[in-house]
Amino acid sequence: MCLGLENMSKGTVVLAYSGGLDTSCILVWLKEQGYDVITYLANIGQDEDFEAARKKAESLGAKKVFIEDLRAEFVEEFIWPSVQANAIYEDRYLLGTSIARPCIARRQVQIAKQEGAQYVSHGATGKGNDQIRFELTCYALYPEVKIIAPWRIPEFYNRFRGRKDLMEYAEKHGIPVPVTPKAPWSMDANLMHISPEDSPNVPDMVEIKFNKGVPVMVTHLKEGTTKTTPLDIFSYLNELGGKHGVGRIDIVENRFIGMKSRGIYETPGGTILYHAHLDIETFTMDREVRRIKQDLGIKFSELLYNGFWYSPECKFLRHCIAKSQENVEGKVQLSVFKGHVYILGRESPGSLYNEELVSMDVQGDYDPCDASGFIKINAVRLREHHRMEREAQLKQ
Amino acid sequence: MCLGLENMSKGTVVLAYSGGLDTSCILVWLKEQGYDVITYLANIGQDEDFEAARKKAESLGAKKVFIEDLRAEFVEEFIWPSVQANAIYEDRYLLGTSIARPCIARRQVQIAKQEGAQYVSHGATGKGNDQIRFELTCYALYPEVKIIAPWRIPEFYNRFRGRKDLMEYAEKHGIPVPVTPKAPWSMDANLMHISPEDSPNVPDMVEIKFNKGVPVMVTHLKEGTTKTTPLDIFSYLNELGGKHGVGRIDIVENRFIGMKSRGIYETPGGTILYHAHLDIETFTMDREVRRIKQDLGIKFSELLYNGFWYSPECKFLRHCIAKSQENVEGKVQLSVFKGHVYILGRESPGSLYNEELVSMDVQGDYDPCDASGFIKINAVRLREHHRMEREAQLKQ
Amino acid sequence: MCLGLENMSKGTVVLAYSGGLDTSCILVWLKEQGYDVITYLANIGQDEDFEAARKKAESLGAKKVFIEDLRAEFVEEFIWPSVQANAIYEDRYLLGTSIARPCIARRQVQIAKQEGAQYVSHGATGKGNDQIRFELTCYALYPEVKIIAPWRIPEFYNRFRGRKDLMEYAEKHGIPVPVTPKAPWSMDANLMHISPEDSPNVPDMVEIKFNKGVPVMVTHLKEGTTKTTPLDIFSYLNELGGKHGVGRIDIVENRFIGMKSRGIYETPGGTILYHAHLDIETFTMDREVRRIKQDLGIKFSELLYNGFWYSPECKFLRHCIAKSQENVEGKVQLSVFKGHVYILGRESPGSLYNEELVSMDVQGDYDPCDASGFIKINAVRLREHHRMEREAQLKQ
Amino acid sequence: MCLGLENMSKGTVVLAYSGGLDTSCILVWLKEQGYDVITYLANIGQDEDFEAARKKAESLGAKKVFIEDLRAEFVEEFIWPSVQANAIYEDRYLLGTSIARPCIARRQVQIAKQEGAQYVSHGATGKGNDQIRFELTCYALYPEVKIIAPWRIPEFYNRFRGRKDLMEYAEKHGIPVPVTPKAPWSMDANLMHISPEDSPNVPDMVEIKFNKGVPVMVTHLKEGTTKTTPLDIFSYLNELGGKHGVGRIDIVENRFIGMKSRGIYETPGGTILYHAHLDIETFTMDREVRRIKQDLGIKFSELLYNGFWYSPECKFLRHCIAKSQENVEGKVQLSVFKGHVYILGRESPGSLYNEELVSMDVQGDYDPCDASGFIKINAVRLREHHRMEREAQLKQ
Repeated sequence: MCLGLENMSKGTVVLAYSGGLDTSCILVWLKEQGYDVITYLANIGQDEDFEAARKKAESLGAKKVFIEDLRAEFVEEFIWPSVQANAIYEDRYLLGTSIARPCIARRQVQIAKQEGAQYVSHGATGKGNDQIRFELTCYALYPEVKIIAPWRIPEFYNRFRGRKDLMEYAEKHGIPVPVTPKAPWSMDANLMHISPEDSPNVPDMVEIKFNKGVPVMVTHLKEGTTKTTPLDIFSYLNELGGKHGVGRIDIVENRFIGMKSRGIYETPGGTILYHAHLDIETFTMDREVRRIKQDLGIKFSELLYNGFWYSPECKFLRHCIAKSQENVEGKVQLSVFKGHVYILGRESPGSLYNEELVSMDVQGDYDPCDASGFIKINAVRLREHHRMEREAQLKQ
Repeated sequence: MCLGLENMSKGTVVLAYSGGLDTSCILVWLKEQGYDVITYLANIGQDEDFEAARKKAESLGAKKVFIEDLRAEFVEEFIWPSVQANAIYEDRYLLGTSIARPCIARRQVQIAKQEGAQYVSHGATGKGNDQIRFELTCYALYPEVKIIAPWRIPEFYNRFRGRKDLMEYAEKHGIPVPVTPKAPWSMDANLMHISPEDSPNVPDMVEIKFNKGVPVMVTHLKEGTTKTTPLDIFSYLNELGGKHGVGRIDIVENRFIGMKSRGIYETPGGTILYHAHLDIETFTMDREVRRIKQDLGIKFSELLYNGFWYSPECKFLRHCIAKSQENVEGKVQLSVFKGHVYILGRESPGSLYNEELVSMDVQGDYDPCDASGFIKINAVRLREHHRMEREAQLKQ
Repeated sequence: MCLGLENMSKGTVVLAYSGGLDTSCILVWLKEQGYDVITYLANIGQDEDFEAARKKAESLGAKKVFIEDLRAEFVEEFIWPSVQANAIYEDRYLLGTSIARPCIARRQVQIAKQEGAQYVSHGATGKGNDQIRFELTCYALYPEVKIIAPWRIPEFYNRFRGRKDLMEYAEKHGIPVPVTPKAPWSMDANLMHISPEDSPNVPDMVEIKFNKGVPVMVTHLKEGTTKTTPLDIFSYLNELGGKHGVGRIDIVENRFIGMKSRGIYETPGGTILYHAHLDIETFTMDREVRRIKQDLGIKFSELLYNGFWYSPECKFLRHCIAKSQENVEGKVQLSVFKGHVYILGRESPGSLYNEELVSMDVQGDYDPCDASGFIKINAVRLREHHRMEREAQLKQ
Repeated sequence: MCLGLENMSKGTVVLAYSGGLDTSCILVWLKEQGYDVITYLANIGQDEDFEAARKKAESLGAKKVFIEDLRAEFVEEFIWPSVQANAIYEDRYLLGTSIARPCIARRQVQIAKQEGAQYVSHGATGKGNDQIRFELTCYALYPEVKIIAPWRIPEFYNRFRGRKDLMEYAEKHGIPVPVTPKAPWSMDANLMHISPEDSPNVPDMVEIKFNKGVPVMVTHLKEGTTKTTPLDIFSYLNELGGKHGVGRIDIVENRFIGMKSRGIYETPGGTILYHAHLDIETFTMDREVRRIKQDLGIKFSELLYNGFWYSPECKFLRHCIAKSQENVEGKVQLSVFKGHVYILGRESPGSLYNEELVSMDVQGDYDPCDASGFIKINAVRLREHHRMEREAQLKQ
């Protein structure tokens, strides 16, 4: 008895599956191409009916279905280092989606290895950043993997030229069509989508406690609510920020692929943490360490945006940035109101802020005459330059 | 008849005079020390009764009184380059006061040269940044000048250990004591001191038109108000931002002198311009030019903060930054509300944003297959690294 | 009567032709594929029998043959800006080959446009940097161009798996086979290939005069030989350096494509100019301008290595670097001997070096007491840090 | 019986004593001023008769004499981190003297604390870098210390305006006058002062083995000599380099104090290590890690030059740089000849150099077609830029 070729699988694919129209069509299409398909859906906090997605995947012929709760590791291993870095792309974008990709792809690759799958697949488009973030992670962690990106395969993208083609295919193959597409959660999520104008007319005030540059407790200053685990802290700040319309931006950004694109992002919790961390960091960190670390943070942000989380340089930067955070501890009080985060104050046991030293009334250890020397020596170079310019002018 | 030595002047001092208690006492004290004193008061937009200050200086024995309107040159020559640079110190402070100093000191030095004065003087303290900004400008533009900084002279600061000593001295020498001290205007000024909570419940929407990276017109989108000169544009945005509590920050910063100090700043107009310029710049500037220019801007901001406006490196940076702005033109629409600046949109004739190129529906000139090659080549290095790590592990 | 399809050209290709085996085979192969082929050979100084190459191309069926003398523009427009930048890749490689590519490709694209050719082609391999340098230039200057890179086309590279296959093909198609392959000239060239050990036992001493950061005259200090045009200066220094085995390096470098590769380079003239320019630049340029410019030069070098000469960022950098060179003028005396360049001295009309100021015997305008203040203020931060660390230790 | 005030010591000073004329006069002068003087002489490898210096100090009235052998800690704790960093100031100076200062001053401060001395003193001039390097170290490690820098004290420098004054003072106080001044040893030392021309006509070839970025063994390839302790390795390379005139430079550099000064340095061992380390580092380190580390190294070098070894930022950088060196291991073969260091080859167990991957004959895992996509995606931005420029031109 022999197995007909038509029954032989080309191999197993682990597909990043969202339950939506695109990846459902991809699931069926991959089967059509002769692959066994394992679907994988990561829970990184998005508003999703995971059980419905499981049933859908199973009904569409997934050989196996993985639904993985990555929320805690996403916050601790990906968001926290970004908070330490003050990670921000092109001065504005807090990289919420960017850092979700390596977290999601890491598990996908683990599943692929564990299930003996040589292939992974995803539904990201061919012009975007996500394909890169996804695939660089896969190649870095599983160098032998083969990646099927249907939106870059002519047979696929020529067949599905728009939503209409997908709908027809779905209907034909019994794929249930979702009524409204779901927004993915991530650090960017704001489930409330409240604009500052419609947000409450009373601010909320919270205190965030940091240790080694990461939040370890958040307390609502009036209500007394307290959160202490990373996931709880981040979820709470996301909720609070969302309620006040914090962290919504409309920007044009530069994609890795060389295009400019417009994006509207919402990063409520991330925005609060960005401001709070910036404050406690400047309060506790030496000026020149801060300056070096600022450059490392900019470089780190680019790497995140471009998909290089799992690269030797990004690993190196994470180490250096974490090192810089050793004394970044203390509490920041802030107000959240109408889209705005306002720092009210800060305190720290290890602060370099020395009230007596800086006071105009207390002389202390400081001799103001020294400033004269400081200024005059700094001026040596400037005066020399002036001398040379004057001489050059006289010569003309 | 001969002039006794005791009546001979030690020389002429041009004193940066504010009309307040400190500099009035300094004026009299300098005379006491045997100097002829010329007072100089710069109008950079602060809320001040300049005529009263003139009379006060004259009554206290100033040999000559200069009151100079520097508002237009302050905006055009100092604020505009800072806007082009997205100048911001330690990620938060927009440097309003910092850039006022070289503008003020430049004229002071011009007056000193013109009046044949070998000395200049000021009332800045011995622990602050302003003394440095002031004096480096003086030394750079007038290398032979001698600077009298009373708050660094033991005879002075030991005599005047607090406000009480100054008040007694003032009374004794007939110096009129001001009832309430005036806040200096500058890019930081918010004459209204309105907190976001007390600000209007309706946003204002404006459009700012840029050319070569500087604003050339601002239009209120509802009221139709239009401003077109630099000074008018900046004053209008200052007023608008002030009304909505924009740009107020409470920070700890690192002084050049090596201390951390707390500052509360208000930079309403500057904050609006910062956001608007950032937006139009990213919209019109090539990604990699932007990245290089970002570093130059950070360096530029440090130089401004530390008082090096008139240094060869700052001049060089201004040139490079201005060069980068050649194509930064277009219009940005934004909303100002409750302390928050929200970008609504932007347009530009010279935009690098190509809607067709970036569209997911239009293939255009772009071949998605190229992205596969792009990603795989970017992964070569990551896979090699993985290979080496794996080998290293096997060896252990 | 009608034209058979088989006789219709697929279009015209401008092929970068070296006269060697590879590009001769490519010429014939392109014709086989149905293209009209125009050959183009750039003279950038290499040791080549250009007329022989012309005849060979004609005999192989080139529709047209261009042989272009680019030596002067190569030196003036590509090498000189690199000298101004102190361009060096990964601290060692002087980028000779890298900067030849955009110069060569620029003319190729001009010819393609002028001749109405939609295609350009080259013989660079699929793993190297040159393909990138070549093609990025082409795309930047002629965005619609189509590039035929045979060594990346499976039909080609599967057919020609080694030199043997090429030889067989050559024989079959009457392509004359060169006896010894020629080394390409470029900034890297050292026609003598002399090792330091075999080089003369007597040094040569020359003086190089710079203006705006580029050499304007070279004089042999003993022989009195003088060169004044860019091409003459560079050729003379190449010869001199070559004679003494200067500028030969054996390195491992990081290719843009993500691999490490080993290269042995010879850049005799470039090495002399690198040392001489570094010297006159430090002598005449302000310290802080130099520091900023150093970073720009590193970035510039990467761009050159990676093929981005014709990019907006490289153009921006060239502008900024040229600006920094305005006062870089003067003369440098140096000795060339046994692979080594030793700076003997320098002089400049616009030097910032002030012998009197720096002298230990002359007090001059400088008050040593100022240094105390300078040091103490610089120590404020360090002492505060020590205080905090001590407090932190006491707490434990 | 009571002790007259005139006999009471003002306190104890630990003086950095070289045995030379200057510091011998300072010793006596300090005693004249009423201080008890402890002399301290560090052995960092210089050619010095330490016992003679001890006797001299004792004879001049030193209360106590410390002669400390710091050679091993100088090499391990100061030179080795500089080798890891490829530390080089302004592209040329290997910082030998700079890094000796913190090493010397650290022990001086330890002695001061241990002996209960509130003062330290040195003979550095008021225009140089060494005073800063020395004193910043003292303030950082012993913030309460008071520093006596005679060459910045008017009573001293007005009294001793030249060597003649010192000689007279010496004679008067029975200070033995040295016949020839000694050159201080340090990383800069070349006891032989041999010029390349006079150096041997036969190269020496050595192999240096690195681990974690520091040399752990040096072997003479012909003679078989082997050195394995840090001090032995460094001394051997110093000797070898010195013999061949390696590492002698004549430069103009920018002092921290704002002046340009000329210096002639000899850093034979440091120069060999610089080249060897650069080579093994590029061979074993990821390209992008190297790029980040290069910037850190430049910053590190500035800090060293300016005297900030004991600063929080320098400590942070040392940590980061050391982290980058984890895989920097292997062997470098090099030739030393006529002032020139020529790298012959290298090998490493953890190399990222993959001969097969980079080979032009082996396809391997690498698909050359990917390079087409890589180039085309990199060109997206360049083509867009060209499009915009063309549009801008058409509008004009």
